[in-house]
Amino acid sequence: MITVDEARAKLFDLAAPLDEEEVPLTEAAGRVLARPVAARRDQPPFAASSMDGYAVKTTEVQLHAMFKVIGEAAAGRRFDGAVHAGQAVRIFTGAPLPEGADFVVIQEDISRTGDLITIVNEPGSNDNVRPLGGDFRAGLTVEAPRLLRPADLALLAAMNIDRVPVVRKPTVALISTGDELVMPGEAPGQDQIIASNTFGLKAMLEESGAEARILPIARDSHASLAMAFDLARGADLVVTIGGASVGDHDLVGQVAETLGMERSFYKVLMRPGKPLMAGRLRGAAMVGLPGNPVSAMVCGHVFVLPMIRAMLGLGAAAPGLKRAELARDLPANGPREHYMRASVNAQGWLTPADTQDSSFLSILAGSNALLRRPIGDPARAAGEVVEYLSV
Amino acid sequence: MITVDEARAKLFDLAAPLDEEEVPLTEAAGRVLARPVAARRDQPPFAASSMDGYAVKTTEVQLHAMFKVIGEAAAGRRFDGAVHAGQAVRIFTGAPLPEGADFVVIQEDISRTGDLITIVNEPGSNDNVRPLGGDFRAGLTVEAPRLLRPADLALLAAMNIDRVPVVRKPTVALISTGDELVMPGEAPGQDQIIASNTFGLKAMLEESGAEARILPIARDSHASLAMAFDLARGADLVVTIGGASVGDHDLVGQVAETLGMERSFYKVLMRPGKPLMAGRLRGAAMVGLPGNPVSAMVCGHVFVLPMIRAMLGLGAAAPGLKRAELARDLPANGPREHYMRASVNAQGWLTPADTQDSSFLSILAGSNALLRRPIGDPARAAGEVVEYLSV
Repeated sequence: MITVDEARAKLFDLAAPLDEEEVPLTEAAGRVLARPVAARRDQPPFAASSMDGYAVKTTEVQLHAMFKVIGEAAAGRRFDGAVHAGQAVRIFTGAPLPEGADFVVIQEDISRTGDLITIVNEPGSNDNVRPLGGDFRAGLTVEAPRLLRPADLALLAAMNIDRVPVVRKPTVALISTGDELVMPGEAPGQDQIIASNTFGLKAMLEESGAEARILPIARDSHASLAMAFDLARGADLVVTIGGASVGDHDLVGQVAETLGMERSFYKVLMRPGKPLMAGRLRGAAMVGLPGNPVSAMVCGHVFVLPMIRAMLGLGAAAPGLKRAELARDLPANGPREHYMRASVNAQGWLTPADTQDSSFLSILAGSNALLRRPIGDPARAAGEVVEYLSV
Repeated sequence: MITVDEARAKLFDLAAPLDEEEVPLTEAAGRVLARPVAARRDQPPFAASSMDGYAVKTTEVQLHAMFKVIGEAAAGRRFDGAVHAGQAVRIFTGAPLPEGADFVVIQEDISRTGDLITIVNEPGSNDNVRPLGGDFRAGLTVEAPRLLRPADLALLAAMNIDRVPVVRKPTVALISTGDELVMPGEAPGQDQIIASNTFGLKAMLEESGAEARILPIARDSHASLAMAFDLARGADLVVTIGGASVGDHDLVGQVAETLGMERSFYKVLMRPGKPLMAGRLRGAAMVGLPGNPVSAMVCGHVFVLPMIRAMLGLGAAAPGLKRAELARDLPANGPREHYMRASVNAQGWLTPADTQDSSFLSILAGSNALLRRPIGDPARAAGEVVEYLSV
């Protein structure tokens, strides 16, 4: 058996960054920028007024100075002409500053009578002008890789980037295995339970930028599993759930190997989730998760999401851990890294769930944290700072 | 002018929770559960083995005890028969416990020869049995409203809930206004800039569960704005950007009022974002955001996202604030609540951006926090704890 970190390192070997594709700006949110993009223009593309007021020459700005208003400049409609001594142009926020003017006296500091204005309040030193390129100059790049957030989309729009090079979404095929499983909505027999892992994993992976499809349930037979692997063709990542130890056999692994899987590892020093398998099958990465619902979801957080991030070009890194204070004592951990279901409250106290049975989804759904206990972690007392994964 | 809190309270009056719709389980991730749903079955639906081993009677479990193996039970295939004294059934994880058996000796504690097994290690007191309904009983409810996360989907599946009642997604129509605007990908004239707000806002709102559509840019004319409001029909929320003070006029508000808008308020004591307008138009909520890109995005976080959450039934609450230590001194704040663009690092230090110009998207895109300064907040020294919004 290997450690969690060793297993993750081997998984990253299977998870090379994917190629890029171009998407319209409206579909770029949450995608990963594949290469730097450069602004196609200066922003603002001209010196612009940042206020409503009157554009004049700085040298003439003083209390009680008078000007003749010779025109108007609004956003989208510049004043075609120049401002000379003693002249002013009525100007609105965002409008190009007229030639000859380099100061905007805000309208609150002006008294106007017909075409004549007077500065009636001390105008201060702020010129209320946004210089050409003050936000960015043509050629400014947004660096890659970068997970594009809403403000990035606004920035890309302002740069006049209408199509965005992003990393292709990893496609994931999810295969539940087991004679005991039926799909939600069916009428299960007395020995049967409902397949739940694929639904949780699909949501988890898609939240992180993958595209996951749920394949038909594979039965515990060579033929059924082989059919499922055929249906998974074309996916970047094939995830099986369960079947790693059916009877005395590692059935999924055996079938995958007859189909040509090069096995990377089998079993990890981890709770929950010991029977975890990985390899490469027909050019795709393959991960075999344990069948217990909680184990499958925890392994999703600890192993599969980092693979997705690596495929998206966001780097090969363990999931980020946060810190909280333990709300109660914990006994020493054993020889496997343990991810305990837990809740962190608003005050930053972490309470591990009383029941850590790896099949209890109600406990997992009520948790917002996985407390990470290293191998051989000693007993911990309430108040000690521990590390956890937000889920 | 009214305060940010007063404005938000008035916005919540416009943002009633929406009705429910039913979606397939695979589409329920990130949606809000509209009413409690109850488990349709017990989980597990039978007492089940939690390990691979041998099912026997507890009363017979002791070191060196011998049993005859009379059959096998696997997940999905129970043993049809009863376990009597001196008998054992080979059992695998997840299999129903046979009648008469109430203890599973794990295979590591067993020595087997043909059909005879002997307990060769002290088996301990853990029966390795998951009781019927140990995870949940039929009728257990998932309470509403609840934002459905991946683990919830797994739980709903296990409960055999294949269709989920969720709150309808708020539909939002986004209208940029301004003679100076063109869409990304166009060739702007010398006085023109690229419409950026709608792209950032669409991404922001959809991240929070709304469905946003970008309407054609409205020009600064009555006819063009009226056309845009016509195109917005059917939306739950109409958001205009800019045009709140065109020339000396509140053009958007004037046009909306001729179309029947009941105005709720106009202008808020806030930086950036003073010209903010709201009302009700043709049964929809309407919000008029300021046209400066950063102002529009900040108002999106401070006002529009909370409206979306209220429409989703998640309650009428101000956005949650976090705390960090200020990395540098700040002068006193003025008479408006100020949301300063800032960056919080991994160590929890918050650094406000040097430039707070409300039109600079490059600064916003480089920020991950909006530092909230209350009205009249005194000068703050480095090291003081301040409140911010994660963006």
